[in-house]
Amino acid sequence: MKIILAKSAGFCFGVKRATTMAFDAAGKCSRICSLGPIIHSPQLVRKLEEEGVEVVRRVEDVPGGAVIIRSHGVTADELEELRRRDLEIVDATCPFVKKAQEFARKLSREGYVVVLVGEAEHPEVQGIVSYASGGEVFTVADRAEAEALPRKKRIGVVAQTTQSFENLQQIVGVCLEKSLELRVYNTICDATSVRQNEAREIAAKSDLMLVIGGFNSANTSRLAQICKEILPATHHIETASQIDPGWFHNVQTVGITAGASTPRWIIEEVLERVGTVGK
Amino acid sequence: MKIILAKSAGFCFGVKRATTMAFDAAGKCSRICSLGPIIHSPQLVRKLEEEGVEVVRRVEDVPGGAVIIRSHGVTADELEELRRRDLEIVDATCPFVKKAQEFARKLSREGYVVVLVGEAEHPEVQGIVSYASGGEVFTVADRAEAEALPRKKRIGVVAQTTQSFENLQQIVGVCLEKSLELRVYNTICDATSVRQNEAREIAAKSDLMLVIGGFNSANTSRLAQICKEILPATHHIETASQIDPGWFHNVQTVGITAGASTPRWIIEEVLERVGTVGK
Ligand code: F3S
Ligand code: F3S
Repeated sequence: MKIILAKSAGFCFGVKRATTMAFDAAGKCSRICSLGPIIHSPQLVRKLEEEGVEVVRRVEDVPGGAVIIRSHGVTADELEELRRRDLEIVDATCPFVKKAQEFARKLSREGYVVVLVGEAEHPEVQGIVSYASGGEVFTVADRAEAEALPRKKRIGVVAQTTQSFENLQQIVGVCLEKSLELRVYNTICDATSVRQNEAREIAAKSDLMLVIGGFNSANTSRLAQICKEILPATHHIETASQIDPGWFHNVQTVGITAGASTPRWIIEEVLERVGTVGK
Repeated sequence: MKIILAKSAGFCFGVKRATTMAFDAAGKCSRICSLGPIIHSPQLVRKLEEEGVEVVRRVEDVPGGAVIIRSHGVTADELEELRRRDLEIVDATCPFVKKAQEFARKLSREGYVVVLVGEAEHPEVQGIVSYASGGEVFTVADRAEAEALPRKKRIGVVAQTTQSFENLQQIVGVCLEKSLELRVYNTICDATSVRQNEAREIAAKSDLMLVIGGFNSANTSRLAQICKEILPATHHIETASQIDPGWFHNVQTVGITAGASTPRWIIEEVLERVGTVGK
């Protein structure tokens, strides 16, 4: 039996970097916390807690010592406040998110009304918005929300890194109707689409497909759905223990991928188990 | 019988301005020519010839004295050459076209690859392109041509003033796929869409619609077609002599509009004739 593991399975560049930085810092600092959970993986958050990394929700709750900023980033005010308190800052903001923050600030400073394509409640979006708050800034989730925007002479658009290109494209089309000058920085990160495209390719040449990740993880569910459309014998699992040996009947090739918040060791446990039951 | 004449019938702001400037200059200068015909109206070009305005095709053919630049504008090189020859320049380039030229130059100077939405053979387009020729510049007529563009980090878009918004919108959507940063100046002039929308409104409340303009004028034919869809009793005419008194049977309201190259006096001859036959 052949096993194909997706190269893009699991953490993206920014999350991998943030978790590495968090474990490194945990080894060096005696008092350390992270501002929000580093990632939507209870298993990983627990591991970090064992290393002494406490999760706090607000800047006011940081007890002192070192503080980790996760890949989503924080608002300009929060960063300012952390600096003012003279904490040791481990800034694991994803460099792609930092870019989106910088473009938002640049557009705002150069006099553009900033339109951020994304979900208003998402911490990444709140962070990016804060960098444009010197001027007017609107967050729009979709075309309909863009259509409600007022007319502005100059509009500058940036996107939450996880948005789909099609959504950005539609909103840009509407913003073109609303402005005389339009400037767009395409700050979409391709980690999600690369992972989805690779999953499609692997599903097409497999007899069984396993998609690993939390049942409440939106991106893992989407990944499983994409694979299922191509290969009905697709199973969404959280851990190796959920694998049913019956699935492997007559299977020549098993494809495996994992959502963005699935830690490496969980993928490896699955690989090991598949190697055993698939014999 | 009621007659409704469209406010937007005939010349747009830029063509009106250019013809006024041409007649004014003709009255003052003894030796004068225009670089290309001021407008696609043989009647008007003949009138200007009677006033001493000769039409020449190329800068080399300008005999000396004064030269009129028509509303489409000229290339940067041509303007340079006219200046070098120390001619009296009557620059009737439409201010909206001038803006498009300036934005093309600005984008090019700031390092953007310029994409001009328009027809490559049109003199206005050739003029605008010339202002961006310090850097890379592409002219694209439609979505398909835009899809053939290479990927570029920074793309700057401007449009020929007479393009449709839908075409610009589609091309901008494609350029977004081709770039990381996209900047768009919407240089479309609304004279055409205003004229078309007003024609629609008038046709809807008339019993007979007359659309005046050359049979070979693309914009007049389009205008007649738009009206015909709303009011089948629409007639495209070139001059007052083509009016058939039989059309006015049972007509309460006559709507009248005219294409972009139709001179005022031709519209007035039609008004007069309608007033007579419609009694
Ligand atoms: S956190 Fe990940 S999804 Fe992209 S923006 Fe950074 S690599
Ligand atoms: S020539 Fe006329 S169509 Fe617009 S760009 Fe100038 S007013």
